[in-house]
Amino acid sequence: MTQNIYDNDAFFAGYSRLGRSVEGLDGAAEWPALRAMLPGLAGRRVLDLGCGFGWFCRWARAQGAAEVLGLDVSENMLARARQAGEDPAIRYARANLEEVALPEAAFDLAYSSLTFHYIVAFERLLRRIHAALVPGGRLVFSMEHPIYMAPSRPGFVADAEGRRVWPIDRYLEEGPRSTDWLAKGVVKQHRTIGTTLNLLLACGFTLTHVEEWRPTDAQIAARPALAVERDRPMFLLVAAQR
Amino acid sequence: MTQNIYDNDAFFAGYSRLGRSVEGLDGAAEWPALRAMLPGLAGRRVLDLGCGFGWFCRWARAQGAAEVLGLDVSENMLARARQAGEDPAIRYARANLEEVALPEAAFDLAYSSLTFHYIVAFERLLRRIHAALVPGGRLVFSMEHPIYMAPSRPGFVADAEGRRVWPIDRYLEEGPRSTDWLAKGVVKQHRTIGTTLNLLLACGFTLTHVEEWRPTDAQIAARPALAVERDRPMFLLVAAQR
Repeated sequence: MTQNIYDNDAFFAGYSRLGRSVEGLDGAAEWPALRAMLPGLAGRRVLDLGCGFGWFCRWARAQGAAEVLGLDVSENMLARARQAGEDPAIRYARANLEEVALPEAAFDLAYSSLTFHYIVAFERLLRRIHAALVPGGRLVFSMEHPIYMAPSRPGFVADAEGRRVWPIDRYLEEGPRSTDWLAKGVVKQHRTIGTTLNLLLACGFTLTHVEEWRPTDAQIAARPALAVERDRPMFLLVAAQR
Repeated sequence: MTQNIYDNDAFFAGYSRLGRSVEGLDGAAEWPALRAMLPGLAGRRVLDLGCGFGWFCRWARAQGAAEVLGLDVSENMLARARQAGEDPAIRYARANLEEVALPEAAFDLAYSSLTFHYIVAFERLLRRIHAALVPGGRLVFSMEHPIYMAPSRPGFVADAEGRRVWPIDRYLEEGPRSTDWLAKGVVKQHRTIGTTLNLLLACGFTLTHVEEWRPTDAQIAARPALAVERDRPMFLLVAAQR
């Protein structure tokens, strides 16, 4: 069972103050890279798994998507998404992605931002997504990078020479990781890149792009604190095709 | 230009004493995982890029391969490969993989063990390999894992609590890495997993398996020192298809 941390009030309050919550897609540094992996959306049917505040759903409609279905497990998130305005072509629904049922061959694009690392029954979900896409349909998603998630203590430390390093351990020990981020005891599911990609292949997907997100020079110039993100990847971005 | 470190006498003397040099394939802990990724070889034409002492070439013949071509840049390695015995179906040749020419559609399998991380012009080589395979032909290779290669100081350190950690930095800064391993100043080419996989895709390959090598429980029971290899991956194993 996935932890529904977004309905924890302290977590939700903290999450609501993040740049990506206040500014939307443009507040997420990895968004330009993820956007570049998307197909054209005009006239397409789009599924957003873990839609949060609905920023992507509304963006997809602005790109001309015909229909958008945004699913999320969090009542808090969905309430905020619905407050952002009515659009008869966008439907928000509560769903636990661990056990969600999806209509078959109903979508041209399945999208998910920073949600899959919470999923325990990941292969089950990928099989449902594969079946929910039309042949040739795309899956584009981001997740927390396993280098970011693996460590017992996920935070930079100084080595003996004072160099800033990210302390990897347990990378090849897959399973839950509990961290304190906005709230105590946030549980994520650590998997290697190889495991994630092989699950996609086993479910019938063809891999089309794999990117370990890296801030651009322009992003670092505009926001020097991002330079640290070049020492270890925070996000894994993947595109695949049914 | 690739550094030909295997023709450095000190390096070669040290390399010749490694388990994988003395015992052959069974002396390499990652071999069972890599072997499991290989297609059947009976009657097949096999190319080994960076064949070293020729252990894989001879194993491929023992599996029934019809012809095997082993390429290596090192005279030292090729001399040792030739000393291991004559087989008219195995040909060893000296080649710099940075600028090698390969016959077109001439091989069913291209194999490479721990060689690609030395290659500067990697995309060029992958294009040549793609063209050298028959349609449906396979590429199976291992390389040093980028988590292993990225750090400024690639060695375990103790964190403030005495925990053994692998100090990642510069993971997203691709380019040469110089380390002291068997000899001073061994130069390898660091690339992220994403870059390696996207180069394969750009060259026309379909990805079929991606594995970050992990010692099995049985391997650790037989050789407890291997337990450390679960903290960070040393090898990346990839299978692809033309």
